Amino acid sequence: VPHLRLYTYGPSPNCLKVRVLLAHLDLAYEQVETNIFGGDTLTGAYGAVNPARQTPVLEVDGEHLPQSNAILWYLADGTHYLPERPFERASVVRWLLFEQERVSEIAALRFRPQAGVLAPEDPAVEGLRSGAERALELLERHLESRIFLVGDVYSIADIANYGYVHVAPEAGMELDDRPAVRAWLERVEAQPGFVNDLVPLPADARVGRGLSIYG
Amino acid sequence: VPHLRLYTYGPSPNCLKVRVLLAHLDLAYEQVETNIFGGDTLTGAYGAVNPARQTPVLEVDGEHLPQSNAILWYLADGTHYLPERPFERASVVRWLLFEQERVSEIAALRFRPQAGVLAPEDPAVEGLRSGAERALELLERHLESRIFLVGDVYSIADIANYGYVHVAPEAGMELDDRPAVRAWLERVEAQPGFVNDLVPLPADARVGRGLSIYG
Repeated sequence: VPHLRLYTYGPSPNCLKVRVLLAHLDLAYEQVETNIFGGDTLTGAYGAVNPARQTPVLEVDGEHLPQSNAILWYLADGTHYLPERPFERASVVRWLLFEQERVSEIAALRFRPQAGVLAPEDPAVEGLRSGAERALELLERHLESRIFLVGDVYSIADIANYGYVHVAPEAGMELDDRPAVRAWLERVEAQPGFVNDLVPLPADARVGRGLSIYG
Repeated sequence: VPHLRLYTYGPSPNCLKVRVLLAHLDLAYEQVETNIFGGDTLTGAYGAVNPARQTPVLEVDGEHLPQSNAILWYLADGTHYLPERPFERASVVRWLLFEQERVSEIAALRFRPQAGVLAPEDPAVEGLRSGAERALELLERHLESRIFLVGDVYSIADIANYGYVHVAPEAGMELDDRPAVRAWLERVEAQPGFVNDLVPLPADARVGRGLSIYG
């Protein structure tokens, strides 16, 4: 059994994804709380953990794996949280990339105006909102005829997309007109061993020098 | 052997990635040229192929797989273009996500000003340039001590990142001060069966209604 150490931050949905899977799998791991607003990702030591200075990072017997969705892949490989059929495995990769490309606009929209990176009236906010709504619309259409994202089986594709989709209302996007997305969120939360231990963003969260807000 | 149909566009580096791997594997496939500037992705028929209206899409016995890096995964699975060790497989996922998150800023920077989406003096151009330079810097540092991105073996992690990195100069980012990146690009191009059949962007390329420029 490899020794697992997770660099994680309580209020980060990207970190939450990994904690959800670790809870499902009931795996023992060492948790290193990494306060991105306290400068913990800007130290020289953290640069050796992840030159991109993002969280989470999983350390496996001394090797570092950044990118939340890649960590999900590593932990799910060989379990029923990753399907076996090659086309479905590639479809999981597809939805991990979708999350990285499109759902991350929810992340920016939730965080940047609050953190003072963007004024609410900045035209870039409207661009992010439009992109995030498009992501939710694509998810809604996909889930209208499916219970989970890939092969109608709960997988890391669902866990990855749950991370930021479930906080869309915090980014000003209500899900009232997305019934398929809401029902899917409830199915995710009803999975055995599912734990959402997301901590609220601190009210004084501000972006510091060199802070990377993705992860 | 499944029947493969690839919706692809000659000038797209995302489509090039898939064609590179298909050439390596010497696989037979039907090519459907999809002119994103001619409206080919905006038809009702294409919406059924990919609701996100991006290229490329691989059709496998009638099932559709979008996202260039997910297509790479599907085609590479079971070949030596995807390593077998679980940590290295997850590291390939990491670099596919890195490409999606960061290298895609090169794509936007190469295309948007030319296509009239952004004026060259728009402040967003500087943001894209800064992000793209940071991506190249992270690649340079990673490749300073490695010959390929994962496990020192050529894999789809390299093919995916090659797509837009090799056109960085077209986005105004010379690679003169990135010797490790340049040497790695040459190693990629020297692989057996490597073919770069990228077609130049048409001079009159303009973004039409609803056109999605990522893929």
